Amino acid sequence: MSDALLHGYFRSSAAFRVRIALNLKGLAYDQTFRHLRKGEQRAPDYLKLNPMGLVPALEIDGQILTQSLAIIEYLDETRPNPALMPKDAAGRARVRSLSLSLAAEIHPINNLRVLEDLRSRFGADDAAVARWFRHWVEVTFAPLETRLASEAHTGKFCHGDTPGLADICLVPQVINNTRFDVDMTPYPTIARIHKACLELDAFKNALPANQPDAE
Amino acid sequence: MSDALLHGYFRSSAAFRVRIALNLKGLAYDQTFRHLRKGEQRAPDYLKLNPMGLVPALEIDGQILTQSLAIIEYLDETRPNPALMPKDAAGRARVRSLSLSLAAEIHPINNLRVLEDLRSRFGADDAAVARWFRHWVEVTFAPLETRLASEAHTGKFCHGDTPGLADICLVPQVINNTRFDVDMTPYPTIARIHKACLELDAFKNALPANQPDAE
Repeated sequence: MSDALLHGYFRSSAAFRVRIALNLKGLAYDQTFRHLRKGEQRAPDYLKLNPMGLVPALEIDGQILTQSLAIIEYLDETRPNPALMPKDAAGRARVRSLSLSLAAEIHPINNLRVLEDLRSRFGADDAAVARWFRHWVEVTFAPLETRLASEAHTGKFCHGDTPGLADICLVPQVINNTRFDVDMTPYPTIARIHKACLELDAFKNALPANQPDAE
Repeated sequence: MSDALLHGYFRSSAAFRVRIALNLKGLAYDQTFRHLRKGEQRAPDYLKLNPMGLVPALEIDGQILTQSLAIIEYLDETRPNPALMPKDAAGRARVRSLSLSLAAEIHPINNLRVLEDLRSRFGADDAAVARWFRHWVEVTFAPLETRLASEAHTGKFCHGDTPGLADICLVPQVINNTRFDVDMTPYPTIARIHKACLELDAFKNALPANQPDAE
């Protein structure tokens, strides 16, 4: 008996985030897959559910939710334990800021549809695409490392000693980085938090390689 | 006597969002400007305040907040009236999803630093930059129009009959579009909501052209 149906793709960072959140909340969910390289996210049956033609989309509580951060905040508001957001407004602002640095600064510029567009529009080859990817990671990871290394609220995880929204955004980005040989040496705090997350089943079980549609 | 100090730039869509939110909340604020084309957001004194080197940053309640959506949610949590978010979790999920479609799908790909990078990295000229800009607007505006035109919760504004977070994200994008000749004809619902917003002083007074640093 499952609580939700996730429309995803093993390699989508945004779907990965939602899988982690569902796992942390202990929710049972089914998955259906939209192969992004085959354009299945633009199939008419899926566009009826989600006109944006993106993954993830989550069917839950008789409705369909889209945009990973909106989905995760909904899960946290409707299923408060364990909490994925701090109890105080300042803490929530910090966690949302860290999360958006990853989900709204790096990921949109480096996702599949943009990388494919660079190839067709500007003739970028594999090496040029990889340089672009690494550039936008580095532009944000350097100051993100500064923040996480210097701010008092950083704990075992991005905010305190329990995993939350910022960690949920961090791990998929670091995993994605491995496909483009991003050097993690300059980011010891990010690497430490990433490692702490991957010791938890909720993160491990959400890894792209552990999904049924993994190639 | 002001409640807050906003570090911004007249043309930054993200700073524009925060100006609208501060205005809707009726908060008095001072502004200081970081000229993005001159790289002032990377000056050492600013990086001390905001290591990410981006605008906006808002000094309020004895702390500094970054990332426009995180700032606006903080304002709404700490100054609940008038509300910028719906009272119900499903409504908040919808508003956050619409907002992220604008703030995390279009804007990060089309902001100044990415457009400049296309010039230096791929030799894109003005026409190529404009084509890129319009492409990423159209990819999201078409399904966003479908959502806003078809979903029951759309009202005078994106969600119901009072302005909120999604409208705050919508108007700066539509204003930004005018610089790149985006044809708005295919988006009558977006255009209608945009017009309704600009009848309000909170939006009008936040327009780039009405800022002290406007060129």
